[in-house]
Amino acid sequence: SEEARRYWRTVYDFPQWQKHRSPYRFIERLFQLSQSHILQNALPAISWVTLVATLVAAYGTSYDQHLLPEALPSISPNASCSAFISNTSVALSLLLVFRTNSSYGRWDEARKMWGGLLNRSRDIMRQGATCFPDDQIEAKKALARWTVAFARALRIHFQPEVTLESELKNILTPAELEMLAKSQHRPVRAIHAISQIIQSVPMSSIHQMQMSNNLTFFHDVLGGCERLLRAPIPVSYTRHTARFLFAWLTLLPLALYPSVGWGVVPLCSGIAAVLCGIEEIGVQCEEPFGILPLDVICNRIQADVMATLKDDADTKTVLAEAGLARLLPSSAPVLSSYPSAALPAIAQQAA
Amino acid sequence: SEEARRYWRTVYDFPQWQKHRSPYRFIERLFQLSQSHILQNALPAISWVTLVATLVAAYGTSYDQHLLPEALPSISPNASCSAFISNTSVALSLLLVFRTNSSYGRWDEARKMWGGLLNRSRDIMRQGATCFPDDQIEAKKALARWTVAFARALRIHFQPEVTLESELKNILTPAELEMLAKSQHRPVRAIHAISQIIQSVPMSSIHQMQMSNNLTFFHDVLGGCERLLRAPIPVSYTRHTARFLFAWLTLLPLALYPSVGWGVVPLCSGIAAVLCGIEEIGVQCEEPFGILPLDVICNRIQADVMATLKDDADTKTVLAEAGLARLLPSSAPVLSSYPSAALPAIAQQAA
Amino acid sequence: SEEARRYWRTVYDFPQWQKHRSPYRFIERLFQLSQSHILQNALPAISWVTLVATLVAAYGTSYDQHLLPEALPSISPNASCSAFISNTSVALSLLLVFRTNSSYGRWDEARKMWGGLLNRSRDIMRQGATCFPDDQIEAKKALARWTVAFARALRIHFQPEVTLESELKNILTPAELEMLAKSQHRPVRAIHAISQIIQSVPMSSIHQMQMSNNLTFFHDVLGGCERLLRAPIPVSYTRHTARFLFAWLTLLPLALYPSVGWGVVPLCSGIAAVLCGIEEIGVQCEEPFGILPLDVICNRIQADVMATLKDDADTKTVLAEAGLARLLPSSAPVLSSYPSAALPAIAQQAA
Amino acid sequence: SEEARRYWRTVYDFPQWQKHRSPYRFIERLFQLSQSHILQNALPAISWVTLVATLVAAYGTSYDQHLLPEALPSISPNASCSAFISNTSVALSLLLVFRTNSSYGRWDEARKMWGGLLNRSRDIMRQGATCFPDDQIEAKKALARWTVAFARALRIHFQPEVTLESELKNILTPAELEMLAKSQHRPVRAIHAISQIIQSVPMSSIHQMQMSNNLTFFHDVLGGCERLLRAPIPVSYTRHTARFLFAWLTLLPLALYPSVGWGVVPLCSGIAAVLCGIEEIGVQCEEPFGILPLDVICNRIQADVMATLKDDADTKTVLAEAGLARLLPSSAPVLSSYPSAALPAIAQQAA
Amino acid sequence: SEEARRYWRTVYDFPQWQKHRSPYRFIERLFQLSQSHILQNALPAISWVTLVATLVAAYGTSYDQHLLPEALPSISPNASCSAFISNTSVALSLLLVFRTNSSYGRWDEARKMWGGLLNRSRDIMRQGATCFPDDQIEAKKALARWTVAFARALRIHFQPEVTLESELKNILTPAELEMLAKSQHRPVRAIHAISQIIQSVPMSSIHQMQMSNNLTFFHDVLGGCERLLRAPIPVSYTRHTARFLFAWLTLLPLALYPSVGWGVVPLCSGIAAVLCGIEEIGVQCEEPFGILPLDVICNRIQADVMATLKDDADTKTVLAEAGLARLLPSSAPVLSSYPSAALPAIAQQAA
Repeated sequence: SEEARRYWRTVYDFPQWQKHRSPYRFIERLFQLSQSHILQNALPAISWVTLVATLVAAYGTSYDQHLLPEALPSISPNASCSAFISNTSVALSLLLVFRTNSSYGRWDEARKMWGGLLNRSRDIMRQGATCFPDDQIEAKKALARWTVAFARALRIHFQPEVTLESELKNILTPAELEMLAKSQHRPVRAIHAISQIIQSVPMSSIHQMQMSNNLTFFHDVLGGCERLLRAPIPVSYTRHTARFLFAWLTLLPLALYPSVGWGVVPLCSGIAAVLCGIEEIGVQCEEPFGILPLDVICNRIQADVMATLKDDADTKTVLAEAGLARLLPSSAPVLSSYPSAALPAIAQQAA
Repeated sequence: SEEARRYWRTVYDFPQWQKHRSPYRFIERLFQLSQSHILQNALPAISWVTLVATLVAAYGTSYDQHLLPEALPSISPNASCSAFISNTSVALSLLLVFRTNSSYGRWDEARKMWGGLLNRSRDIMRQGATCFPDDQIEAKKALARWTVAFARALRIHFQPEVTLESELKNILTPAELEMLAKSQHRPVRAIHAISQIIQSVPMSSIHQMQMSNNLTFFHDVLGGCERLLRAPIPVSYTRHTARFLFAWLTLLPLALYPSVGWGVVPLCSGIAAVLCGIEEIGVQCEEPFGILPLDVICNRIQADVMATLKDDADTKTVLAEAGLARLLPSSAPVLSSYPSAALPAIAQQAA
Repeated sequence: SEEARRYWRTVYDFPQWQKHRSPYRFIERLFQLSQSHILQNALPAISWVTLVATLVAAYGTSYDQHLLPEALPSISPNASCSAFISNTSVALSLLLVFRTNSSYGRWDEARKMWGGLLNRSRDIMRQGATCFPDDQIEAKKALARWTVAFARALRIHFQPEVTLESELKNILTPAELEMLAKSQHRPVRAIHAISQIIQSVPMSSIHQMQMSNNLTFFHDVLGGCERLLRAPIPVSYTRHTARFLFAWLTLLPLALYPSVGWGVVPLCSGIAAVLCGIEEIGVQCEEPFGILPLDVICNRIQADVMATLKDDADTKTVLAEAGLARLLPSSAPVLSSYPSAALPAIAQQAA
Repeated sequence: SEEARRYWRTVYDFPQWQKHRSPYRFIERLFQLSQSHILQNALPAISWVTLVATLVAAYGTSYDQHLLPEALPSISPNASCSAFISNTSVALSLLLVFRTNSSYGRWDEARKMWGGLLNRSRDIMRQGATCFPDDQIEAKKALARWTVAFARALRIHFQPEVTLESELKNILTPAELEMLAKSQHRPVRAIHAISQIIQSVPMSSIHQMQMSNNLTFFHDVLGGCERLLRAPIPVSYTRHTARFLFAWLTLLPLALYPSVGWGVVPLCSGIAAVLCGIEEIGVQCEEPFGILPLDVICNRIQADVMATLKDDADTKTVLAEAGLARLLPSSAPVLSSYPSAALPAIAQQAA
Repeated sequence: SEEARRYWRTVYDFPQWQKHRSPYRFIERLFQLSQSHILQNALPAISWVTLVATLVAAYGTSYDQHLLPEALPSISPNASCSAFISNTSVALSLLLVFRTNSSYGRWDEARKMWGGLLNRSRDIMRQGATCFPDDQIEAKKALARWTVAFARALRIHFQPEVTLESELKNILTPAELEMLAKSQHRPVRAIHAISQIIQSVPMSSIHQMQMSNNLTFFHDVLGGCERLLRAPIPVSYTRHTARFLFAWLTLLPLALYPSVGWGVVPLCSGIAAVLCGIEEIGVQCEEPFGILPLDVICNRIQADVMATLKDDADTKTVLAEAGLARLLPSSAPVLSSYPSAALPAIAQQAA
């Protein structure tokens, strides 16, 4: 079931949205019921409830047909269980929805932070391309390299299924890669490196400050994601909700058997599927990094950062032709000396 | 039904609000029931529930009139379905409302980002008009051109129903238009161009930083909208809610037939219309760009940016007459050399 | 009923709060029931429900007394309507409260933006009074004039019941007033003018940037309010809720007649008054500008901005006496040359 | 009951929290029921409901014992009232909780703004202590004086139970106190004075800007609190909720009498105590300034601002000894010339 | 039970998350029921309800078996209690969930502020390492020392279970430690010291401002945490909710006895466990500092700040080799003169 979390990493585009909105979506969703990852994960809990319901129904039937010793208690009246079920169902619904709500909020926060990382990676590269003096070709390239390296190092921090080597060997120089690999805390080191690059370029400290603001944002993203990973919703809270739910579901067959007989088996399975499904969604979204498409975001960052680096000279030429005289590009285009092996690799990876 | 999404792109003004608030609105709304796009879209699902209800009622009537073999089960008691319906209705209501709530939040976020784009487009043009030196006429015009170009390129990014050519051929120069059209990521390229324009003007780096802050805001809008497009609410969540709703509605006729007889057909259709309508609103608002009047916002941006460019000299003259000596305008009014063909076109478009 | 919206523009002070908190408030509120603007506006809808209830009761009584042909259907059992009412009441309550909640959120957002306008108008005047050099008397006065002009122009933008002429003829010079009146978008023009004033004063660009930040805030307020005016809550949503509510209320007498008889008339009127009242509050708050005391906020802005302008010299003198040598005021107090006619007018208006 | 609002101004520390969390808290809370300010304030409303219930029970008993003319209507069936009660109880609960929620939000916002005032008062004093040149002893003292004066003037603005004279006569010089007392708007004047102090000190305009940012924050706090005071939750909303609640409570005895007899009196009193208590909490929190410990916050501001002023020289000495050469303190410690009478008074007040 | 709060200080990593998400989690949670800190704390309240239920059941049984005088009232009908229970259960559920929601919000706010402290501590050290001139080795070390000292002083402020001496004797110099220990308000003093360090370094005031912005953030964290500690949710609110809950639970056995007999004892215990558990979670989260792993966050800050200090020279060398010429490191590596005793101690503590 840990493997199934990969299937949550959806990325939508216009065609998927059209399908998502299709008026006939309900048919498709009913037919794909068996593929629901939610129900597959909740299966043990649902099975437990089904088992309890079957035992209750078997006991009840046996008792009613006098197959059991008379000394055993009858299920029939059982007003206690019914009273428990009816007096707590509103509180249970509210707790479940609140818990799922909080987990969804964590997922949303993580997604927003990674979206912000994309925005600000593009932004810091735009600032570098326009604010670094034209002769600082090496600094511009280093900025692009390390911006990508920060994003990929951050991904590995939260999805440790890939290695630094495989992700960054086409981006960083071997010495840089070794430095990063040896660091105690890699994303912090990558931000430090970008900071040193910015500080090394001779330009107005106003512009340095502006770029540095984006590094502060990077630190907020890094720390915010670490917070979500390290600090779950108070576990006493989660556990109280889960215990309440399972106790409720276990008592449910006892409360319903007298009125529905053997119907208690499909009925309790159905209710368990619905409620355990809600709880399962809450549990899956609570740690959002396993279900976010971080690799797609990293590829997007790499593609856009590299494109800004490459297009800079071209943009200047076109604008200068439109009448902005001071934008005449420097004679040597920025990318001419970039190692020719790296770019195709990058382009492929980002595709 | 994809076409119907255009009718959501409402823009209100005072008269529409008066009608919206009319004490007699409820009459009008009942009479326009058949025009409801929500119900038209939810029609397949409602039809399905109506079909099930009809079959259940037909089966039940036939059984009661002994037209069916006695071996078949009777619907009459059916406590299981009733218990399912009553034990899950609160959870279903909460889930539906929460889901629609989240979708509405996405719509609201998108609308706020596009509103922010309008605010900051006006703001960056104000900064350019007042901070660029008086002799930088070309730079001011280029800033206006590209601010409009960014907004229109962003619209095409999220409403790919119009072409770059048709939207921008009266705004940009042919060379600029070609550059933008060839770009890997057009909105990123447009921000890059504005950044280069700002950097090319000889002025205090403080003022450059201020204008650049608005570009960072543009990047946040761009990335925020992309996030909403790429990342739906976790689909497991949406699907679990939809499956729960359809299972609930399908079991509803079985639960209600014994007490209401053939009344189950209009009754279940009505309940399905209400609940599927709520779910449909959630689905439609989840991808908000198809239902936002982005073209109206773009026209507004263009009209206001161009008006600020045109009014700059006039404002200076009037303020100078009121005693602010240093505001004497430069002799050549900014707009005198603007291609005369472009402005009427712009004015029309913005009207 | 459009006129009644003016009575919503409450401004509280300590005595009103004491009355608002009075332990005997419930008596007063019951006696003022007939003055409730909410119920007056919802009267047509309530009347409709009362009419339906009366017809149902009349039909039912006639039928029971065999005054009607036997061929007509009896109301008596009517389990369908009861089932509809009971199965949808939780969803209806949630939808109504969520809808009113969203509308209240819009009201609150509008109120916060206008509150922010007051804060930042005071702030920009403080910055002007302290950062403009002492000899820039005309610039300080122009800043005060145009800050007030922006607030009043913004008010007219959202409450078009007053004219620019009446609001601003004592504030701006005739030439300025004409320029503002002719503008395509008046609040944008007013911000542009303030921007030009700031740029025209010889001072550190750091201080110019700081004041300009407040202009960016003004643009955010302007655009944020325009967004609230132009973009209602998706009308499909509002209409679905309203249709649901009216269908529910229309079926209510049919569901309740069998058990309560003629009591159905006051009962349904009462329930309609409660629920239509909630919906009416949502409708009224959705467009908040008609129910906000914008004129009071504008007067407050004018009074505080003018007071800061007038008190500047005095503040400097007192602080200098307390030991801050560099604060010795310039010999000519700022306000001495202000047109004497304007100030009393302003003072009166602000009172 | 207005006096009772003072008892809400709780300030907690670790021992109070331990008591608050005590596992035996429920016993204590039941025994202190009669001291509940909430119930004392809601007493008239609860008495009204008790009176109605007693009358209903007396009427019902008399009627059943045939002490009343037969022509009078019997209470017994009364399905109308029961239907009203049961069909509106969910909506009533949601409205009440939403209303209390909004009021709590206002309390929380006010508390956060006053907390922010404390933070930024400490921060502006820190900036002054470290950024003002060492020879600007008078300016540092004036900054401390006026920061405290702003906080106290703001408190008087929202808790007009103390006078400016008593609060500030040990802080400001007599001339400053008179200037502040005469001002049209005292907190605005205090911010203006701090702004003048900052502007008067010869230092980098970057540092001036930073301190000025805190003044903008002060303006936001001032205006935000004024907004909460001037703009209640739309009164139509509050009144509709209150009317709904009282109508519901008044009809309650009629609905319950047939089943519970004289038990209706304690029962309705109990339900009224619970629900009116919730409404009362909402009403009390809506205007939060009367129930916030503003004096404690002001004392805290004064103690911390004065301590920062006093400790500045000492901090420099210690850091210089640790190796930071440029931090050698000026020979004259800052506080040596501070009027010796003021400090003990301040210390006492802050204790 | 105060001791049990330590067990809430959970820090998760990938393995814990896998266990947290295990499909078999429900089994484990049922078996660990007796270890639930929530239930242990709520035990007195649950016992009270159990006691009441037992007394009610004993009384009822005795009465039914005519062991009691006939003059005593019978429990049997008791419609009043049932009516109270059923008419208030929705309001009670909403109040409980809202209260727990608010408390969770406070926990979340505290956790976010401490997460922000980590982010900005890393950020201010990054700024110091890159912006301080290369020869300011002592200043860099002092910055690192005091950043750690602020975090640890802040922890002691909110978890007074450790002493300043034990936490900081390996970090600060003895003179510094004494200064901090003697301060009236230690965290304020620590921020003041960092401010002095920044101001003492000869560098652009732009960079000083940027670092100072992080100090403003530190002040906001400090004051925000103090606000959470000093200002509980209005106690009238908390108490009204608690009283309502205990009254409801005390009346519950009276309402349920007639239908469930002796089953009332386990039934009421179960409902009390569920509802008191929710209230207990709210009470525990309301003061969040006792249940947050502040020591882990402090160790993390120390490890990352010290690593940035140590790695600075190395980063410069590697980047310089990659082509950024101006980054050649100063000949003396920063850390060479750091007291060799301190570092291993730090490393151990952070591990």
